[in-house]
Amino acid sequence: MLTETRAKTGALFFDVFGTLVDWRSGIAREAEALLRPQGHALDWLAFADAWRGEYQGGMEEVRSGRIPFSKLDVLHRRNLQRILPRFGLDGLSEDALRELNLAWHRLDAWSEVPAALARLRGKFLLAPVSNGNISLMVDLARRNAIHWDAILGAEVAGDYKPKPAVYLAACAAFDLAPAACMMVAAHSYDLRAAEKCGLRTAHVARADESGPGTGERAPKGPVDVAASDLIDLAVKLGV
Amino acid sequence: MLTETRAKTGALFFDVFGTLVDWRSGIAREAEALLRPQGHALDWLAFADAWRGEYQGGMEEVRSGRIPFSKLDVLHRRNLQRILPRFGLDGLSEDALRELNLAWHRLDAWSEVPAALARLRGKFLLAPVSNGNISLMVDLARRNAIHWDAILGAEVAGDYKPKPAVYLAACAAFDLAPAACMMVAAHSYDLRAAEKCGLRTAHVARADESGPGTGERAPKGPVDVAASDLIDLAVKLGV
Repeated sequence: MLTETRAKTGALFFDVFGTLVDWRSGIAREAEALLRPQGHALDWLAFADAWRGEYQGGMEEVRSGRIPFSKLDVLHRRNLQRILPRFGLDGLSEDALRELNLAWHRLDAWSEVPAALARLRGKFLLAPVSNGNISLMVDLARRNAIHWDAILGAEVAGDYKPKPAVYLAACAAFDLAPAACMMVAAHSYDLRAAEKCGLRTAHVARADESGPGTGERAPKGPVDVAASDLIDLAVKLGV
Repeated sequence: MLTETRAKTGALFFDVFGTLVDWRSGIAREAEALLRPQGHALDWLAFADAWRGEYQGGMEEVRSGRIPFSKLDVLHRRNLQRILPRFGLDGLSEDALRELNLAWHRLDAWSEVPAALARLRGKFLLAPVSNGNISLMVDLARRNAIHWDAILGAEVAGDYKPKPAVYLAACAAFDLAPAACMMVAAHSYDLRAAEKCGLRTAHVARADESGPGTGERAPKGPVDVAASDLIDLAVKLGV
C-alpha cells in the first residue's frame, strides 16, 4: 500500500542539461565573463561545445568501472583540463580554473521552464534525474526558482545515466513503481534507457540545444508523450 | 574556490522528528483514525510512545552492522510488528499495517516551522539531515509546505545518525566544509555528534516532545546557538 498510495501522485523525473537549461550559451557567457578581463579572446561558443564534447567520455570512465564514482563537478574539471591547450588557456591559475568550473552551476533555464514546473508540481512529485551532482542541481534550482521535491540522479545512485541503476534508484527513493514515474528528456538515448527500466517517457524538443538546428526536433523512437516544450507537456498531461 | 564560493551562503541541516514535526500527537491521531473504525480502542498516545520507543534499537541494528542499511520505513514496520501484541493488535491485516506505517508520512510541523524555514531559506541552503527516508521527508515537506534545497540524511549516507558519515555526507553533497554547516536539533546527542564532525550546532527547545515536560528545555552541552523555537533561531542568526 506504500507504493499504491504514493502512486496516485506519480513522479516526473527530468534530465537537466539541454532539457531544462541552456548549457551552451551559459557556458560561453560565463567563460567570457571570467576570461576576457584576463586578456583572453576566443570563440566562446566553440569553447562551450568543446567542453561539452568531453562529457560522455568522462562519464564513461565511471560507467565502465575504470574509475570509482566521481561527481560531475570533478569530471567537468578533468574535461576542462583536457581542452585548455586547444584554446591557449594552459596558463590559467588554480583559482580561475575552479571558478570556471562553477560555470555549470550558473546556467539559465529555457524561458518556459520555471512556470511550467510550478504548474506540473501541482499534480506530480518532481525531481531532477540528471548526471549533475547534488550541489550543481541545488544551485541551478536556486538560480531558476525551481522547487524540486528531492534531488535524485547520478550522485544518489553512484553511477551515471544511461545505466539502469540511476533510473531505478530514483523510483525507489520515491517508493514508486517505475510505471508510476515518467522520465522527461530532450535526448532519445536517455528515454530509451528509462523505458527499458519500466518508466514512462516524455520527449521535449530542444531543436537548438547545441546551436541552431542541432537538437532533436522529435523523438527517435516511441515515447508516451512528445512535447514541443514543458508547457506543452503540462497540457498533454492534463495539468 | 568551489568550497569558498558556496560557503558564503552556508547551510542549515535539520533534524526532523521532534525538532520540526510533532510525531507523538500525529502518530496517535493517525492510528486512531485508522484503527478505531475497525473496533480498536486503546491508549493512542501510549501506542505512539511505544512505537517511538523501538526507534533507536531498530537503527542500532544498522549502525552496528548486524543488518544492511534499510530505510526507516522498513525499520518502522519491523518496530510496529514488535509492539502489536502489547496493544492487542496482532490480527491487523497486511493492508492495515501498510497504511498504519504511513502514519509517519503524515505528521504536522510545530506551528512556527513553515514560516520560519521560509525566512531562513533567504540566507541559507536548507536540508533535512534526518534518519527518515527520502519519500518520508518528501511527504512531510509537501504536507507542511516546506521548501528544501535537497533531501539529505540517512538514506543518502547509507547509515543512521549519530554516525559521523551522515553529517559528513550532507556537507559533501553541498560542497561545503563542515564549519560552513550548522546542525539544528532538539536533541543534544545529535548536536554532540555533529559538533565532533566539525559542524556548528543549534539547539531548539521542544519541551513537550514526548508529552508535557519530557523534552530538552535546554542543551545538555555547549552549542553555538540555543533557541526557543525556529523563529528565535532566525533572529539569532540575523535573518
